[in-house]
Amino acid sequence: MGLDRVRIVLVRPRGAGNVGATARAMKNMGLADLVLVQPAPVRRFWAHALAAHAVDVLEAARTVASLPEAVADCGLVVGTTARGGPYRARRLSPREIAPEILGRADRQRVALVFGPEDHGLTNEDLKACHRVVAIPASPVYPSLNLAQAVIICAYELYLAAGEGQVADEAPEAARADRLQFLCERLQTAFLKIGFLQAENPDHIMFAVRQLFGRAALDEREVRIFLALARQIEWFGTSGWKAAAPQGAAGEPVE
Amino acid sequence: MGLDRVRIVLVRPRGAGNVGATARAMKNMGLADLVLVQPAPVRRFWAHALAAHAVDVLEAARTVASLPEAVADCGLVVGTTARGGPYRARRLSPREIAPEILGRADRQRVALVFGPEDHGLTNEDLKACHRVVAIPASPVYPSLNLAQAVIICAYELYLAAGEGQVADEAPEAARADRLQFLCERLQTAFLKIGFLQAENPDHIMFAVRQLFGRAALDEREVRIFLALARQIEWFGTSGWKAAAPQGAAGEPVE
Repeated sequence: MGLDRVRIVLVRPRGAGNVGATARAMKNMGLADLVLVQPAPVRRFWAHALAAHAVDVLEAARTVASLPEAVADCGLVVGTTARGGPYRARRLSPREIAPEILGRADRQRVALVFGPEDHGLTNEDLKACHRVVAIPASPVYPSLNLAQAVIICAYELYLAAGEGQVADEAPEAARADRLQFLCERLQTAFLKIGFLQAENPDHIMFAVRQLFGRAALDEREVRIFLALARQIEWFGTSGWKAAAPQGAAGEPVE
Repeated sequence: MGLDRVRIVLVRPRGAGNVGATARAMKNMGLADLVLVQPAPVRRFWAHALAAHAVDVLEAARTVASLPEAVADCGLVVGTTARGGPYRARRLSPREIAPEILGRADRQRVALVFGPEDHGLTNEDLKACHRVVAIPASPVYPSLNLAQAVIICAYELYLAAGEGQVADEAPEAARADRLQFLCERLQTAFLKIGFLQAENPDHIMFAVRQLFGRAALDEREVRIFLALARQIEWFGTSGWKAAAPQGAAGEPVE
């Protein structure tokens, strides 16, 4: 897939922790190709500590002497910046540019370039870039930590690659006839224990029906409340002193 | 705006650096309300170092003894998890839940709850939560650093709040008649210096026109190339020995 061909380039990174955290962020989002341009001496302890289970990405990282060397084989080079100004016009957001990056990465390597922690990419660095990206952030404090900037860009790429399905599908909401059946059973049960008045049960039941609808009750939850209605009715009939029948326990919550 | 009423709750955070980095991530994305539940003793040096220019958020953070206490005044409590399993069904992604959180935060406080670095929120913690969110991530390594998880959720809220406009609008592409005029001027210039053959200029000019169109040349760029055409024509007429007229210098790049 395209993510294989996306390279993260850190230009003159100073913090070993940031290099490690970048490796972790990359692995979290399915990236593996890390290149460092003139990094400050990397203190292994901190880099490894922050990389956590992404030490493989960190160990596979290449170190080169210049940005042009880091991106020489790339068909598209995207620089990141928090600032406007010369060489920074036509900035896109990560979400806007992600489809273009992935489209290109189908066939060619693409580089996403991040500047040093203190001042970001220089105008000279940007001459090696074809496009410029800026992460939307508060004007009060728009400067993100380096690895934070990396993970937001990587996250947008991961989602744009269609990899972003959270495992659980929300179950379907229960059908209207099931909800209606449940409300009828609850009404019967509530009447039996005197929670509703026989002459005017609708007011409370309307509120219950609204609440169930708003919560998009699913079939499993319908069964939980049906069991509750059954149990209430049983106690309403037999009194609290009698032994309980198989009730809610027959419908375990988990 | 709604972001004012979004609270970030860190449950039993262990790393002072993560607490500081969380404060920075929050300020980057327009959030300010941070609550710590039973934090490990926070080493001020590391917390401050990672908070950078968000020490104000860090200093304003409250420390409480329990999660229910941290979220007592909230109308919606959203827990984050990387795992599936009991109490983790119906998970949404940050992008899916962001509009709901902001809609609620229009009127009430909303809490976004993050677990400890090692194992995340427990089932007991999740009993204090109304909804569960999971950040899409690679199944190979789905566990994000704490502050990284915070910034992705905060970033989605920031964008959903409509705060995400990157400053620069892409300028409009130049009109077709301007592009046509430019290509004619370039063709004249190229012919003058023998770059095109008079009998068949179209092949090269077609490529040039395609390239300009693909790049969505804007009016400012049209003027840069018009100045180039003028200069080429001038040199083509006068020869390289003559003094240069006011040319490209009259159309500064920046």
